[in-house]
Amino acid sequence: MPKTKSSAKKAVLFNRIAFIGIGHIGSSMALAIRCAGLAGSIIACDRSATARKTALKLKVVDEVTADIAKAVKNADLVVIATPVGTNGAIAKAMAPYLKPGAIVTDVGSVKQEVIAAVAPHIPKGVTFVPGHPLAGTEHSGPESGFAELFDGRWAVLTPLPRTPAKALAQVTALWKRIGAKVDTMKPDHHDMVLAITSHLPHLCAFTVVGTATDLAGDLKQEVIKYSASGFRDFTRVAASDPVMWRDIFLSNREAVLNILQRFTEDLAGMQKHIRRGDGEALEKIFTRTRAIRRSIIEAKQA
Amino acid sequence: MPKTKSSAKKAVLFNRIAFIGIGHIGSSMALAIRCAGLAGSIIACDRSATARKTALKLKVVDEVTADIAKAVKNADLVVIATPVGTNGAIAKAMAPYLKPGAIVTDVGSVKQEVIAAVAPHIPKGVTFVPGHPLAGTEHSGPESGFAELFDGRWAVLTPLPRTPAKALAQVTALWKRIGAKVDTMKPDHHDMVLAITSHLPHLCAFTVVGTATDLAGDLKQEVIKYSASGFRDFTRVAASDPVMWRDIFLSNREAVLNILQRFTEDLAGMQKHIRRGDGEALEKIFTRTRAIRRSIIEAKQA
Repeated sequence: MPKTKSSAKKAVLFNRIAFIGIGHIGSSMALAIRCAGLAGSIIACDRSATARKTALKLKVVDEVTADIAKAVKNADLVVIATPVGTNGAIAKAMAPYLKPGAIVTDVGSVKQEVIAAVAPHIPKGVTFVPGHPLAGTEHSGPESGFAELFDGRWAVLTPLPRTPAKALAQVTALWKRIGAKVDTMKPDHHDMVLAITSHLPHLCAFTVVGTATDLAGDLKQEVIKYSASGFRDFTRVAASDPVMWRDIFLSNREAVLNILQRFTEDLAGMQKHIRRGDGEALEKIFTRTRAIRRSIIEAKQA
Repeated sequence: MPKTKSSAKKAVLFNRIAFIGIGHIGSSMALAIRCAGLAGSIIACDRSATARKTALKLKVVDEVTADIAKAVKNADLVVIATPVGTNGAIAKAMAPYLKPGAIVTDVGSVKQEVIAAVAPHIPKGVTFVPGHPLAGTEHSGPESGFAELFDGRWAVLTPLPRTPAKALAQVTALWKRIGAKVDTMKPDHHDMVLAITSHLPHLCAFTVVGTATDLAGDLKQEVIKYSASGFRDFTRVAASDPVMWRDIFLSNREAVLNILQRFTEDLAGMQKHIRRGDGEALEKIFTRTRAIRRSIIEAKQA
């Protein structure tokens, strides 16, 4: 029975939603769904007792459990929101308990490997709609969730050829109702776009901050003390969840290595320009990169 | 004669201040100085007629001129705030007109080369106090200046062995009065710390955004459309002034190439971990980088 106020009943999209993993993205979705009154009730399954306790205390969800069978049993929508490396095992574990007619979706930053890991376990009568909201901060855990996270951001869905239009429409409606813009994309294309826009920048930030971490004691302390804007921004990016990012790089290995190869070549070019003192070449590159920023501001993604 | 309100007279540190270059940093300093009533009058010299017009219109300074001789003639403090590659020529051009007893300072992101270019031109009776505020945004021009830019940020001074303590104290007082924390450092040490905290991150951002700029049309459009947090942050950094950054990389060549070498080795290590699927190694690195972020937050530089 819906636990939300009766005035919100009309808006309910799913009678019961289960989150598998109630971290930064899961808790933000749950809060946004609660605010919009889109679910009758929300249950979260998390293997961390602390996360379960926090999610309940902060009223992110109605119920928590460590038992995945219990979580998915009556759920009309199951959202997998754990590091992508776990998704296959989760799908396998919950498969026998999924309700006929239920929809399973996910929020993973990589789509091909997640689809390969999850889809084979989805039983007949249950639909899998792979998805990925292009939103998030460097924080993690249910205490970092907030309902406005998806406002004006893209949620990319990468349906399979056999995904029924109705299920796709239901997941689309959910994202739109919590403020996101929705687009569909082929899984391999998604993985290449994300390798460039998210995985490569994160890899650079992790590496730069890692290089600084390896400096001798005094210099390292001064780098922290005098961290100027560039490095400060990089440390924010490099403070992102280690397990989540480990899984992303391993799962999107091919696309990441592909774009990393191009980046390395371009970096070698920069190095050559600096070594040779070729100011004209540097200025030309920097002028082009500045123009890209303008395009992003115009695309309202800044 | 001071043009500020008489109530602020007591606080005046320099009767007349001249800015050579009235861009993002120059205009922010000038506004902060005006707000705090630290100068009797402020004149700006800029070769750009637009910059001069804007600085005057926005009341960033009292007077503008394109004539460097006129700008420095009666100035007690001259602040060079142009891309570092121009500093030597500026010092040479203004040298004959500097007032005896005047102090010359600068705000350049590189110190050894600026000192080598500027110091030889400084006449007897005039003092050079090299400086660098660790502050700034990706914006440029006098319209982007704001008085609070230096609040709580470091201004690093790199005095020469012959710099008189009195002049150092005067420039220190100015920075403190406009909200900055002041520290002194050896020029070569400054250049290495900045190569890590600022120049390398900027180089990565310019390169990543440059790599994306070179993508084929459709993919490039989608990268802009779906720019997720990592790339979006990088485009902001990579939107910084092309000429300013060209000069920084050329002027701090040795330190930048040194740290770039270490970064490239570390990046090759990351690549190897990804290719081999070594999740343990990746997670270990990412956990260490996350810890650095905490240090920066604790150092109140976040």
